[in-house]
Amino acid sequence: MPANTALVVSAHSADFVWRAGGAIALHAAKGWEVTVICLSYGERGESAKLWRQPGMTMEKVKAGREAEAKRAAQVLGVHDIQFWDLGDYPINLTNEAFFRLVDVFRAIHPKFMLTHSEKDIYNHDHPAVTAWAQNARITAQAHGHNPHQKVLGAPPVFLFEPHQPEQCDWKPDVLLGIDSVWEKKRAAIECMEGQEHLWEYYTRVALQRGAQAARNSEKKITYGEGYQAVFPHVVETLA
Amino acid sequence: MPANTALVVSAHSADFVWRAGGAIALHAAKGWEVTVICLSYGERGESAKLWRQPGMTMEKVKAGREAEAKRAAQVLGVHDIQFWDLGDYPINLTNEAFFRLVDVFRAIHPKFMLTHSEKDIYNHDHPAVTAWAQNARITAQAHGHNPHQKVLGAPPVFLFEPHQPEQCDWKPDVLLGIDSVWEKKRAAIECMEGQEHLWEYYTRVALQRGAQAARNSEKKITYGEGYQAVFPHVVETLA
Amino acid sequence: MPANTALVVSAHSADFVWRAGGAIALHAAKGWEVTVICLSYGERGESAKLWRQPGMTMEKVKAGREAEAKRAAQVLGVHDIQFWDLGDYPINLTNEAFFRLVDVFRAIHPKFMLTHSEKDIYNHDHPAVTAWAQNARITAQAHGHNPHQKVLGAPPVFLFEPHQPEQCDWKPDVLLGIDSVWEKKRAAIECMEGQEHLWEYYTRVALQRGAQAARNSEKKITYGEGYQAVFPHVVETLA
Amino acid sequence: MPANTALVVSAHSADFVWRAGGAIALHAAKGWEVTVICLSYGERGESAKLWRQPGMTMEKVKAGREAEAKRAAQVLGVHDIQFWDLGDYPINLTNEAFFRLVDVFRAIHPKFMLTHSEKDIYNHDHPAVTAWAQNARITAQAHGHNPHQKVLGAPPVFLFEPHQPEQCDWKPDVLLGIDSVWEKKRAAIECMEGQEHLWEYYTRVALQRGAQAARNSEKKITYGEGYQAVFPHVVETLA
Amino acid sequence: MPANTALVVSAHSADFVWRAGGAIALHAAKGWEVTVICLSYGERGESAKLWRQPGMTMEKVKAGREAEAKRAAQVLGVHDIQFWDLGDYPINLTNEAFFRLVDVFRAIHPKFMLTHSEKDIYNHDHPAVTAWAQNARITAQAHGHNPHQKVLGAPPVFLFEPHQPEQCDWKPDVLLGIDSVWEKKRAAIECMEGQEHLWEYYTRVALQRGAQAARNSEKKITYGEGYQAVFPHVVETLA
Amino acid sequence: MPANTALVVSAHSADFVWRAGGAIALHAAKGWEVTVICLSYGERGESAKLWRQPGMTMEKVKAGREAEAKRAAQVLGVHDIQFWDLGDYPINLTNEAFFRLVDVFRAIHPKFMLTHSEKDIYNHDHPAVTAWAQNARITAQAHGHNPHQKVLGAPPVFLFEPHQPEQCDWKPDVLLGIDSVWEKKRAAIECMEGQEHLWEYYTRVALQRGAQAARNSEKKITYGEGYQAVFPHVVETLA
Repeated sequence: MPANTALVVSAHSADFVWRAGGAIALHAAKGWEVTVICLSYGERGESAKLWRQPGMTMEKVKAGREAEAKRAAQVLGVHDIQFWDLGDYPINLTNEAFFRLVDVFRAIHPKFMLTHSEKDIYNHDHPAVTAWAQNARITAQAHGHNPHQKVLGAPPVFLFEPHQPEQCDWKPDVLLGIDSVWEKKRAAIECMEGQEHLWEYYTRVALQRGAQAARNSEKKITYGEGYQAVFPHVVETLA
Repeated sequence: MPANTALVVSAHSADFVWRAGGAIALHAAKGWEVTVICLSYGERGESAKLWRQPGMTMEKVKAGREAEAKRAAQVLGVHDIQFWDLGDYPINLTNEAFFRLVDVFRAIHPKFMLTHSEKDIYNHDHPAVTAWAQNARITAQAHGHNPHQKVLGAPPVFLFEPHQPEQCDWKPDVLLGIDSVWEKKRAAIECMEGQEHLWEYYTRVALQRGAQAARNSEKKITYGEGYQAVFPHVVETLA
Repeated sequence: MPANTALVVSAHSADFVWRAGGAIALHAAKGWEVTVICLSYGERGESAKLWRQPGMTMEKVKAGREAEAKRAAQVLGVHDIQFWDLGDYPINLTNEAFFRLVDVFRAIHPKFMLTHSEKDIYNHDHPAVTAWAQNARITAQAHGHNPHQKVLGAPPVFLFEPHQPEQCDWKPDVLLGIDSVWEKKRAAIECMEGQEHLWEYYTRVALQRGAQAARNSEKKITYGEGYQAVFPHVVETLA
Repeated sequence: MPANTALVVSAHSADFVWRAGGAIALHAAKGWEVTVICLSYGERGESAKLWRQPGMTMEKVKAGREAEAKRAAQVLGVHDIQFWDLGDYPINLTNEAFFRLVDVFRAIHPKFMLTHSEKDIYNHDHPAVTAWAQNARITAQAHGHNPHQKVLGAPPVFLFEPHQPEQCDWKPDVLLGIDSVWEKKRAAIECMEGQEHLWEYYTRVALQRGAQAARNSEKKITYGEGYQAVFPHVVETLA
Repeated sequence: MPANTALVVSAHSADFVWRAGGAIALHAAKGWEVTVICLSYGERGESAKLWRQPGMTMEKVKAGREAEAKRAAQVLGVHDIQFWDLGDYPINLTNEAFFRLVDVFRAIHPKFMLTHSEKDIYNHDHPAVTAWAQNARITAQAHGHNPHQKVLGAPPVFLFEPHQPEQCDWKPDVLLGIDSVWEKKRAAIECMEGQEHLWEYYTRVALQRGAQAARNSEKKITYGEGYQAVFPHVVETLA
Repeated sequence: MPANTALVVSAHSADFVWRAGGAIALHAAKGWEVTVICLSYGERGESAKLWRQPGMTMEKVKAGREAEAKRAAQVLGVHDIQFWDLGDYPINLTNEAFFRLVDVFRAIHPKFMLTHSEKDIYNHDHPAVTAWAQNARITAQAHGHNPHQKVLGAPPVFLFEPHQPEQCDWKPDVLLGIDSVWEKKRAAIECMEGQEHLWEYYTRVALQRGAQAARNSEKKITYGEGYQAVFPHVVETLA
């Protein structure tokens, strides 16, 4: 039986770590094959620390960011991490990349997709990516697109927590407990040497979401991740 | 081991049938003990057909409505149905009834509660009831209320589909497949002889929600019920 | 054939003038019988100028406000103006007054109701009144309320423009041209001697709504009133 | 006197049938000339049944879809149906097509436009089309665009009901009774042989909107269509 | 010259600490006289740890809570702390207390008021208190209420951060840097011995709001508090 | 010490006058250097009166609009006004212009930016411009964009009042008193000879916003401008 699969579409090469590292590690630990697409390196807009180093070049920044992301992916148990180098700030979401993403959907048939929030007043690339990736998912569902392939079903889409959630009108309607993989997420976070100022910030996010998950469930949960679902949950029981 | 329990708070004595008959029958069929509180008979505002009969009185309307609701409850497998006779249009949500509902929470410790939508421009009783019932749930969580009792945990709350959902800003984020119990729900609906004009209306609602559940899940579902969750879903996996 | 009727529920005795004077005069001029209920005189919260006069008493304020409102009603062609003296800031919406309003609905069977916006951060009485009046309308629709009377149909409800519309999340989805009765509305406004600071303010509101009505319709309109509809418009043509 | 005109902008060649067939037939029956622009055939994304046939090609799908749409248009009394073949999933809204649509506005001066909802989480083409078509309408209003032509006035825009209305934050604030033309709409629906699974779904939609129209108006209405207005209604009376 | 004054209306006796301790200490340090009204002790709903002690009684809980709150108030530099003992879960907002709060407004003429968010799905008392306190503020503005007194002006109102902000649709549009008083706030937090599980939670909240304040301002800020303004900001410059 | 700077991004060459003339004059009067970028002349969509003149050409319209805007800018004390001639209805927001705007941010380091509302159902160019200009601001913050330059900080962004504010879901959360410069704003308005029909309209807007500013502040203010802030206000005091 083939493994379950999931797809994570990350605008910049560190987003999947802060925003979905727990979900990735959790499903990987259960044998899922998680594919992460890093559309850009965040080389212009999310590498401030690197650019403060003398003699820095765009190539060095990209190489450094790729190395960090790969290490983090390994820690989390990512099955496949891809770097599409589309540029950032602003990201250049080409037609070619669009159909490449459709091909990924058709190739791996993910059971769910994780990607960015629909609004982010601090970051133009994030909402651009989520609209584009959701559109690619819909094209992958079209019977007339490469009609010889099996069409995509209806995998749910969950949206990452943005950096300042309330300002982005993002509301977490799904809280995922990630205690069993927290050590991995923290280790992956620490791979992001160029953004050390965010390590404690996102550790606190995990603690707050964990406390909230516990409060909403009577379960003992310390660390969590929040997501906003795009589609209604189809369930067989309300419990 | 005690059975799982659920609580349904219905403003009028037929609401639980149209709006939650599938969920009730589904959980009852799995051995759950479902308690339904009918706060009023809907004797003034939801019994038009009865009032058109000559010689009708308030007592007869109430008796008729109670008999119908009891038959429907039996068909659905309701464990306990209670009639609190608080009046309707407008409903009279007394302090005494409030603490009686708190007592119910403490007595049965439901795993979830179903009740009305938070807005209903066609019906004042529905939003009044949902605010009041959610408030009672919170009081049941208070350690200082009857401190010798076990406090209520954090059961999720799901809101019924109102009659004209878009006008009530109600959005179904949970779709429940009810094919296995549809026959029971339809039979319960047909117990509501005083509101025969709604039988086909709510059958069509079930078919639309079923089609939507199928579309959102790749599952084969014909009949469904929609709910809006009040609290975030706490989950252990995103699949 | 009995005249068409309309009902205006005004929290304070001047609200119907600023907010609905044009609609009242327009329909009155077509032979409609418009009933205006002034639930309070606004004697505490909307009579600042009067209270600055030496020797002012509550009785004098109420008498002055009633006289002003009666004059304005006469100018507008109001059929029946009633003063229920429920107090203001905060208004005291009694149970008795509730059923009195239900009786008015049953007595005049208005073709539409005008009342306050659902939010007003500057005024607690306005949202309290609109919720209460809409609830009374629903009770008047209940077959079991005074079952010997003819029940109310489904008259549309239009919400007045509040003083600071954007702050109250009020959006005018209906723009009524009032050029033919503007002189009457202005004359009625000038009856409100205790609130002279508002004359020009509401004249400008009329000019802005008129310009917007023209812009949205290609019609020549100078003065307008905006309303927010509570219920969907049921139409026989889209033109 | 020239006939009244209306414009329907349909992303895919069947949308105008499910979503606006009643409005089209109703106005056509009154002598209106209704122009329908099918921007694409929905050949990739909305022709699943056709693609399941052996030997199917893109050309055959388009030809079949065009034939179906023409038959439906004839049944509804469409004055002019155009197929612009812009592709689908995703649709390719070219600059050239944009100005072609502006030309249509200038040529027919529609009294109203019907097009898609502003959000559709299941379909990227629908919101793209509505933004684009509304933009073309605005360009048609510009005096400096082809200054020798008569500029467009301010025709209202009504948005189609999407497939899952609540998920698309679509709220029907206009309900149109379509009983007199229901037979035509159903016949047009049955022309859509490639999407037979939707026939009953949209028949139920019509019944629900009809029941809701009746409930909101005291009129006897069985079948209806819902629309969401983009602009405020400019009216001469509130009745 | 009299000191500047501010009013904090706290549903339960610890709310002012978690939610506004920084603002209180900051203004107190500048010589402001801050009045805190604790409407209840939170004796039933927010004293779980105390109730787990053997032999606990309602009187002991209240006394303990009052002592904690007084110590915290002293640490923060509160000018006047009052305990109105209205009960909690649910709170009993009496008419008498309403006019007592109006009297406070008239007595101290606060330059701003802090109170709870307008929605809180975890806590019924919070939204009840904010509506009630805002209503009292409006009554205090009424010239006809105790006409011999000076009426209240238009002090802005800022809403506390609730426990789970996104679930409460609370959006912080004001971020207050509190570094200079953080030690006091932390010390006040540690006075709340009955809710030790919240110490770290609200310390993390302060760190997140501080990081966000820094991000939105280029200032160096470590600890912050977020508020949502009810009214528009009236300013003399945009910088 | 270099002057303080501000940036105004105006879709059409008159927008900065109606919508921000007061803010510009106010800050200019304090010695600020305000840069205004007119992305287009509004030559097609906002020059109706000019196009009604015989023999009008696109070049004459543009020249006339530029002359008007320059005169208005001079009256207001604008430091630098630029005309980028990108076309209008629809505006053509090129990649080249995007980086030109980024360069402006990097060159002047504005303390705040003013631009259009995020929704405008009457005008496609306005929301397109605001999204684009906010995106340019974000790119100007990126350390990897022209890494030798000083990156932009976090200047707040305030959104102009659109023509029909409620229809555009625009809510003024900042009210700026402009009495001291009203004469200049009115004089600048009168420079816009091609849009004389808007002079009184925007004078009334200024009076309404002034009255509202007074009402929200107890200050004496006659003329005002409203803005909607994109980012939270970072403050050092709540008074």
